This record gives sequence, structure tokens and C-alpha cells, in this order.
Amino acid sequence: MKQLPKPIQQLILEFNKLPGIGSKTSERFVFYLLSQPKSEIEALAQSLQHMSKTIRSCRECYTYAESELCSICSDTQRDRTIFCVVAEARDVLAIEHTNQFKGLYHVLGGVINHLEGIAPQQLRINELLSRIEQDGVKEVIIATNPDMEGETTALYIAQQLQRLPVIVTRIARGLPVGADIEFADEVTLSNALTGRQRMQTP
Amino acid sequence: MKQLPKPIQQLILEFNKLPGIGSKTSERFVFYLLSQPKSEIEALAQSLQHMSKTIRSCRECYTYAESELCSICSDTQRDRTIFCVVAEARDVLAIEHTNQFKGLYHVLGGVINHLEGIAPQQLRINELLSRIEQDGVKEVIIATNPDMEGETTALYIAQQLQRLPVIVTRIARGLPVGADIEFADEVTLSNALTGRQRMQTP
Repeated sequence: MKQLPKPIQQLILEFNKLPGIGSKTSERFVFYLLSQPKSEIEALAQSLQHMSKTIRSCRECYTYAESELCSICSDTQRDRTIFCVVAEARDVLAIEHTNQFKGLYHVLGGVINHLEGIAPQQLRINELLSRIEQDGVKEVIIATNPDMEGETTALYIAQQLQRLPVIVTRIARGLPVGADIEFADEVTLSNALTGRQRMQTP
Repeated sequence: MKQLPKPIQQLILEFNKLPGIGSKTSERFVFYLLSQPKSEIEALAQSLQHMSKTIRSCRECYTYAESELCSICSDTQRDRTIFCVVAEARDVLAIEHTNQFKGLYHVLGGVINHLEGIAPQQLRINELLSRIEQDGVKEVIIATNPDMEGETTALYIAQQLQRLPVIVTRIARGLPVGADIEFADEVTLSNALTGRQRMQTP
């Protein structure tokens, strides 16, 4: 046994593909699984297959769904006149947890990134435009990350939406809860000043 | 969508069981897999199932095998009169890589650990005794780790083997290659002195 049996080697290679997992950690996973009852390995395999078979993109907003429409798009209680545009499906969950947004979502599937060669054409921007035109949307909130790529994408989308009768807003950039003004970076602080809000009307 | 779809949650829970993987890393794995073509998820699931179906313990030495006997036990070129006793199947690979040992192995399946409640009866020590008696073994090298549990296990096995006509040896403990005597711990250095070997015969 100069080498591990082929099926073990194969699984080590597969785990190795996961983000942040090197060959040593991958080996550790496999040896751990080998030390468990076979039912544990089967459970992981079946969960993978079940997810692969049942999860798809929602036909409308492209978030994770178990049927053609996701639970948000098929919910008649949601406000269909306001859209929140996010980069990834997992951002939807974060916004849902705030309980602040009762409209629909639109998942772009990434952000414009010239270094990684992601052009606007690869994002679901045309799909967004046609959804807005069809559904009579009144406001579009752009909720991409407040970093270079996120801002570029937000600006690009705002430009594309100019010709439509829709209000385009951007999530506020400023100091996060618990931050210290003394130690805040200049960009965040200058965003907080520019985006200041009225506290009292005289 | 207050929560991720059930199949995604399920897979996050499954990955969470792997050693050193918390819920955030587990989520990262799942979102990574969701961003890949379905064939990637299927490949991982199939590798898991293939390993679960094909890998078993060797009937003789209990290392990983694809058939009833592992590649070492079924190799007629190996010296059947010398056994190397290791704690885990993965230790076999490390020793094989040295190209120094041409005998057979015996995997204990752990070490004696009173804190974790692993008693000698839970290890494959009886199996070792009956193999030695049957096969006419001349030497047994005990290659457990040089730590508390490994030493306890080695002593226990040596005791059990006293009544058999077999030489029992222990792998050498001393300074590893490239070590610095100045910075070596006392136990290692005292092991190195006790285990000193003759360089010249006058």
C-alpha cells in the first residue's frame, strides 16, 4: 500500500475542490468519514444529491427555490411594486432577516468585475429591466456591497434604469452600529456625512 | 424566505459534522457547490457513495482494503514473520512511505485512553495475539505515537506478548531530523540519550 486505495484518493481530490480546503484537511475529512458508521457517509451523499435535484433558481428573481417560483415570489402578501437588487442569492437571506423589506428581490448573479472578466452582460440586468417594465415597479433598491465592484455595478444599473419611470435608491452607506468615529476610515465617515438625515423639522 | 430551503439547510448540517468545520464554513461549502455545475455536486456525492461501498477493513490487518485482504496482506513478497502494530490505518501509509518495512501490519483501531474511555478491550489486541500465534511471527514492532496514550498502549501490548515466543520492539524515540539540541525538550533529549546507538566497535 504505497498509496491509499483509489476510492479514498478520489474522495480526497473531491473535497480538495471546496473553498479553503487543502489536501491535508481533505484527508482529515475522509479519514473522519471512514471512522464513522457507513450511514453517516450515505447521509452526506444523499443530502448532496437531494440538494442537487431539488434546488433551482427561481424563474422570476433567481434566488434559491424548491419549485419554479421561490417562496418570496409566490407569496401574495409581498409588495410587488418595490424591488431589491442583490448580487448573490445568499444576500436575500441577510436582508430577509432584517424584517424591513416586504417587496420582491432580483439576484444579479455577481457584480461587474473587470479584473475577473465579469462584464455587465454576464449579470441578469436585462432580466431586471424586463421584470420592471412588465410588473409596473415603482422603486428599485440597489443593495450590492459598498465596495469597488458593488458601487460600479450599482452605478451601471442606475444608468440603465434612467429611461424607465422608476425611483432608483441605494442602501445607505455610513457607520455600522457600535462603530467609533475616532477610528472610522475616511471613506465611511465621508459617506456618513454625505448621507446625513434630518432628525427634527423646525 | 426567512430560512434557506430545507435541502440546503440539511446539507449545511451534514458538512457541519466534519472535523473543524463550523456552520459558517459549512455554509460556504454549500454556496460554493450551488455556484458550480450540478455535475460537480454529483461527482462529490458519487465519490462518497463509491468509497462507502468499496472500502472495508482488511480481514487480517484491519487497514483500508478494496477486497477481503488488503494489498499488503495479499502480497506474497512481504515478510510474514515480522509485524508492525499501529494505532490507525493511516499510520500504515506513513510507514510504507519510508520503504523501510517489508513485513505485515496490524491496526489496533485506536490507543488506550482512560479519559476518553477507550479500554484495551476495545482495541484489536486479541486479534493481534491470535495472528501472532497462528502465523509464527518472530518480531513485533510497536509503532504507536510517542505520547502518553501511545506509550501506555505499547506497554500494555508488550505485557500481553510476554507469554509468546516473540521479540517485541518499540520504534526509536529521539531527536527528529533537523532538530536543535539546544531547543529540544527534556523528555525527547533524555529519550535520545537512553536510546543511543553504538557508532564504532573498537
